[in-house]
Amino acid sequence: MRPSGRAPDEMRAITIETGFTRHAEGSCLIGFGDTRVLCTASIEERTPPWLRGKGEGWVTAEYSMLPRATHTRGQREAAKGRQSGRTQEIQRLIGRSLRAVVDLKKLGERQITLDCDVIQADGGTRTAAISGAWVALRIAVDGLIKSGALTEDPIEAQVAAVSCGIYQDTPVLDLDYDEDSTADADANFVLISGGKIAEAQATAEGACYDEEGLLRLLRLARIGCDRIFAAQLDAVKK
Amino acid sequence: MRPSGRAPDEMRAITIETGFTRHAEGSCLIGFGDTRVLCTASIEERTPPWLRGKGEGWVTAEYSMLPRATHTRGQREAAKGRQSGRTQEIQRLIGRSLRAVVDLKKLGERQITLDCDVIQADGGTRTAAISGAWVALRIAVDGLIKSGALTEDPIEAQVAAVSCGIYQDTPVLDLDYDEDSTADADANFVLISGGKIAEAQATAEGACYDEEGLLRLLRLARIGCDRIFAAQLDAVKK
Amino acid sequence: MRPSGRAPDEMRAITIETGFTRHAEGSCLIGFGDTRVLCTASIEERTPPWLRGKGEGWVTAEYSMLPRATHTRGQREAAKGRQSGRTQEIQRLIGRSLRAVVDLKKLGERQITLDCDVIQADGGTRTAAISGAWVALRIAVDGLIKSGALTEDPIEAQVAAVSCGIYQDTPVLDLDYDEDSTADADANFVLISGGKIAEAQATAEGACYDEEGLLRLLRLARIGCDRIFAAQLDAVKK
Amino acid sequence: MRPSGRAPDEMRAITIETGFTRHAEGSCLIGFGDTRVLCTASIEERTPPWLRGKGEGWVTAEYSMLPRATHTRGQREAAKGRQSGRTQEIQRLIGRSLRAVVDLKKLGERQITLDCDVIQADGGTRTAAISGAWVALRIAVDGLIKSGALTEDPIEAQVAAVSCGIYQDTPVLDLDYDEDSTADADANFVLISGGKIAEAQATAEGACYDEEGLLRLLRLARIGCDRIFAAQLDAVKK
Amino acid sequence: MRPSGRAPDEMRAITIETGFTRHAEGSCLIGFGDTRVLCTASIEERTPPWLRGKGEGWVTAEYSMLPRATHTRGQREAAKGRQSGRTQEIQRLIGRSLRAVVDLKKLGERQITLDCDVIQADGGTRTAAISGAWVALRIAVDGLIKSGALTEDPIEAQVAAVSCGIYQDTPVLDLDYDEDSTADADANFVLISGGKIAEAQATAEGACYDEEGLLRLLRLARIGCDRIFAAQLDAVKK
Amino acid sequence: MRPSGRAPDEMRAITIETGFTRHAEGSCLIGFGDTRVLCTASIEERTPPWLRGKGEGWVTAEYSMLPRATHTRGQREAAKGRQSGRTQEIQRLIGRSLRAVVDLKKLGERQITLDCDVIQADGGTRTAAISGAWVALRIAVDGLIKSGALTEDPIEAQVAAVSCGIYQDTPVLDLDYDEDSTADADANFVLISGGKIAEAQATAEGACYDEEGLLRLLRLARIGCDRIFAAQLDAVKK
Repeated sequence: MRPSGRAPDEMRAITIETGFTRHAEGSCLIGFGDTRVLCTASIEERTPPWLRGKGEGWVTAEYSMLPRATHTRGQREAAKGRQSGRTQEIQRLIGRSLRAVVDLKKLGERQITLDCDVIQADGGTRTAAISGAWVALRIAVDGLIKSGALTEDPIEAQVAAVSCGIYQDTPVLDLDYDEDSTADADANFVLISGGKIAEAQATAEGACYDEEGLLRLLRLARIGCDRIFAAQLDAVKK
Repeated sequence: MRPSGRAPDEMRAITIETGFTRHAEGSCLIGFGDTRVLCTASIEERTPPWLRGKGEGWVTAEYSMLPRATHTRGQREAAKGRQSGRTQEIQRLIGRSLRAVVDLKKLGERQITLDCDVIQADGGTRTAAISGAWVALRIAVDGLIKSGALTEDPIEAQVAAVSCGIYQDTPVLDLDYDEDSTADADANFVLISGGKIAEAQATAEGACYDEEGLLRLLRLARIGCDRIFAAQLDAVKK
Repeated sequence: MRPSGRAPDEMRAITIETGFTRHAEGSCLIGFGDTRVLCTASIEERTPPWLRGKGEGWVTAEYSMLPRATHTRGQREAAKGRQSGRTQEIQRLIGRSLRAVVDLKKLGERQITLDCDVIQADGGTRTAAISGAWVALRIAVDGLIKSGALTEDPIEAQVAAVSCGIYQDTPVLDLDYDEDSTADADANFVLISGGKIAEAQATAEGACYDEEGLLRLLRLARIGCDRIFAAQLDAVKK
Repeated sequence: MRPSGRAPDEMRAITIETGFTRHAEGSCLIGFGDTRVLCTASIEERTPPWLRGKGEGWVTAEYSMLPRATHTRGQREAAKGRQSGRTQEIQRLIGRSLRAVVDLKKLGERQITLDCDVIQADGGTRTAAISGAWVALRIAVDGLIKSGALTEDPIEAQVAAVSCGIYQDTPVLDLDYDEDSTADADANFVLISGGKIAEAQATAEGACYDEEGLLRLLRLARIGCDRIFAAQLDAVKK
Repeated sequence: MRPSGRAPDEMRAITIETGFTRHAEGSCLIGFGDTRVLCTASIEERTPPWLRGKGEGWVTAEYSMLPRATHTRGQREAAKGRQSGRTQEIQRLIGRSLRAVVDLKKLGERQITLDCDVIQADGGTRTAAISGAWVALRIAVDGLIKSGALTEDPIEAQVAAVSCGIYQDTPVLDLDYDEDSTADADANFVLISGGKIAEAQATAEGACYDEEGLLRLLRLARIGCDRIFAAQLDAVKK
Repeated sequence: MRPSGRAPDEMRAITIETGFTRHAEGSCLIGFGDTRVLCTASIEERTPPWLRGKGEGWVTAEYSMLPRATHTRGQREAAKGRQSGRTQEIQRLIGRSLRAVVDLKKLGERQITLDCDVIQADGGTRTAAISGAWVALRIAVDGLIKSGALTEDPIEAQVAAVSCGIYQDTPVLDLDYDEDSTADADANFVLISGGKIAEAQATAEGACYDEEGLLRLLRLARIGCDRIFAAQLDAVKK
């Protein structure tokens, strides 16, 4: 029995409020239950130094948690003077995930930065961030197309992510904080609409698992990502 | 004529949504027009080292701007590895302003940290932050009183802040970004309910002003803060 | 009764020794009583990146306190690896104050940096720094005029600063350390010769004040700055 | 055809030289072909602050690449003043992997730090580091047992890691640099002797893969890790 | 012929103004010609963590150059966020030199920090710093003896330092900036009254030297240090 | 009697294994007894900004100690975020020493960086680093000559370094850790084949010495460096 009363393959409510801030070229506030992440897409008409003159663009991401997004206040990374290993690991994952569905040549010599700031955390912040970042990116790129700056769509598919884990011997979908802090294994899957896997990260600090376990977690992830893909399309259409 | 069409002594719409996040002991999303700041109050049952054993508490603040709160994306301070002088100046101001209305002895040996994170910026972010931080603090302290942790209220008054400036030779209240970037003088007043001044900061990079100018700006600030005091009480009552 | 025996509107002795160091284009050691600040003006024939090609110059300032300028030794900021919020706040104030009296277009594409290093502290270091920085700047600019690099004087007026405060219910001028550490309110005024205000910063952590209090502090500041203006002219003439 | 002429399921030569340095409680120089990583295990009779008094130990890891371990010289992280996100991600992975096979309660209140310094890089440095770190750890713990400091063995199994990827449409084992820089997908598997998976990380920036692809990569990883498990035992016996 | 017209074995004028600042337990402004260094000694009744409870004291030093002590303005180390290698090398040298003449057991469990801040630089700042630091230390320790905190004098001798070099094939004493920047070899000697050597550092980037050259430089250093020892005693007696 | 049983003028075994890593243009693992330092030379076809367009090259060095090169584990400098003063002092010394034997004009507009990473420490790491860095440099420059990039040899001589000290009143050569930690005086000499001195650094924290003592240490250094010069030539010939 999950603490939230959810079925093992049941996701939390997905909410996506687009246009949450007005300066960014694309933005949304995405919620997976009580987890809420503000995702913005910022377009800059320049690329990183190592890409200049190659006729390609770049998509990158930054991630941060507001100090009191969590149960107890965490120290602000800007005050500490360095981003934690966890933060860097997550923002690298978000960037890779989004680049997996963008044709950087079609994007042209511009950079899109996806800022994912966690307003409230209840487990699954990185997966919500990836899923919301796609929506912000989609809106920003639609703007480029509408303005004529792009004639071909560089986004090749949708990308979404969800966490799965083994909670009291049962594989469950979309762990919330109560489950996450006691789960035996914890996996994050980044999936692409159409069925391919962009990234799979499965970790076990306590109990370990095998092929069958990995596939069961992946099967749950497919259920969750299908729900997210639908919510992304709904949000973008509005 | 102001770009927004407002009268010289007219504030922007003040919106205060309490309980915007659920983990903090007090929180609100405050809006002065398009400027929106998330303010949270976090209670910790310990004080900074230099206060230990003195039977007093502490109130402090941190301030940050999300990278894309502004028209063009700013670099994330956590990525740069240091907080800018502007950030530090503002968070010191917020802390002093709130301490001006708190009896630290009555607060007891605990620290309340007010995190003010700017979600969207359109001028006046520090004044909105101070005004919203009071609401978050009020809610957090009400919780301490309700739980019996405090028997006497350490908050002695309300505190609010607003900016004023001289725009095209006219003193105006509550500058938005369009006015702020071209104003000749720029002042921030932190006022206390009952009429006292907690802090006055008036700067003129271009044109300068005199006693009469300073008093006219202060008179506008009184009008604005009275509006904010009313909005704070409304928000807290809900 | 003030600890120093001074009258409420009496400044400490003002001493200004020009040419204290020989490499800088302008320099002086300014004293407000026991507070002593070394101010140097350094001219560089280049401007910050964001000003390049605009035909304007820039005036900026840096401030530091020697570790043992104070009663007890403070940690060296270079050893800590970061400048404190206080340091950054003060150096931003010094820079703004000086720019208030300089026509940056007339200065041409060059930068003048005012380094204000506190040799000994006894209250009022930032106001002494501003007042001394003007002398260093005046000497440096006189050099540019004499050498023919400038044909028009970019300095439009004198600028000086002084602190005032409410000490045992009496408004007093030019607080020394003993007064500063126990004063109820503390204000710094940056005034321009001719009567305008460049900057007013009045803070009250304990007691607060009102319009009348603010004006009384400002009146004292005018008395003090008139004395400083005279001392600046004397120093520069030598 | 692989650049090295290896069969798709063929690992590079595994070399493990134990006792490579003499101060560490355990050490080895591990080679996967031209990739060479120095792994040392350092025992300290204290635990991190958050574990004190809990009767448990801790196993952690640090990773670094010598500046000229690579084809072109990289900047030294100590000179840059910060560890890269890649470095932090890898050292977190090494630590988690080793903890997956250690009973921290049996280890007692001590910390073992595994330093993995890449002397020469040719792809697969993180997997060689994990595999070598186990050997260093095994030697260090054997020392604790021999000295009587431990009566029960806290190491529950062997752990090893290997990379796999899709190179020119063929799943291949143990990517070297030439393959790694052009592979379509890249996966790192951390396996435990006995068959369980400790960690699986599969990434695709270009082409993506599906369940079948993931399982084929995992099957290769099993072949590779079996070879590494044998080499570890050989090394430790000497 | 030296640029300054001095004889090869002629030192610049040595000036030592004690009590230059009033908060430090000992202070002086030392001048070797145009080089001027403010040296302060600060006593703290605590020792570094690694010395606690050992019944010994510690003597340490910090060194800094004001940004415009030099011909062209240097960047402030506090603004850069790190001390340069040169700064650290010099402050380590100053500390070692002073410790060479102090009996740390007799000093008792206290730390004396010698801050050496270069007000104006014209070559030889580190040697002036060492020589002036001894004066500040002497004054501070005299205060401890006078107050009864110390009954036995922990200072066993005087220490002084001077630079020598080979300028246009001639060994010369006490290099000024003009000589220093073109000298073929550059040596700093730290000598102890009575004749012993505390530290010798001789460097040759261009031409190199041999035993005879080293001894000739050392002979010059003895002449210079004798002059400094006399000036130190004069200064302390006043 | 020395702890190692060596005669006072006896060096430890010198071992030099060239080509220890394969990516660097030159590399060796040098051993002075149990001290082992990996030295690599990296050629880059660009010079530091302050040298550009001057038709000269640059030789520089970086030094680091692996965390467990020593008896007890030291904190990794990359994790601390700054290089220690000791590290910076040593790497500056290595760079100066190598530049003493290189004609930078003949090197042309390229930079050679010598990375010296201490794999195992037993005293004398900086002197082994200098001696090994020359070997790596020699190999790298030979490569430039062989490829035709250089027609004239920019290396004018050999450079080597060794430590000497006064151990139990006896001057001894090539201190190991046991001697180094208890020696009264400690000197490092950098000598050039042919007999000149590039750098002499002699320090005495406890006992001090005089001219005769300095010369006796230097005489030992000549014995040691002659042995190292021979070993360098042997290594390079292979």
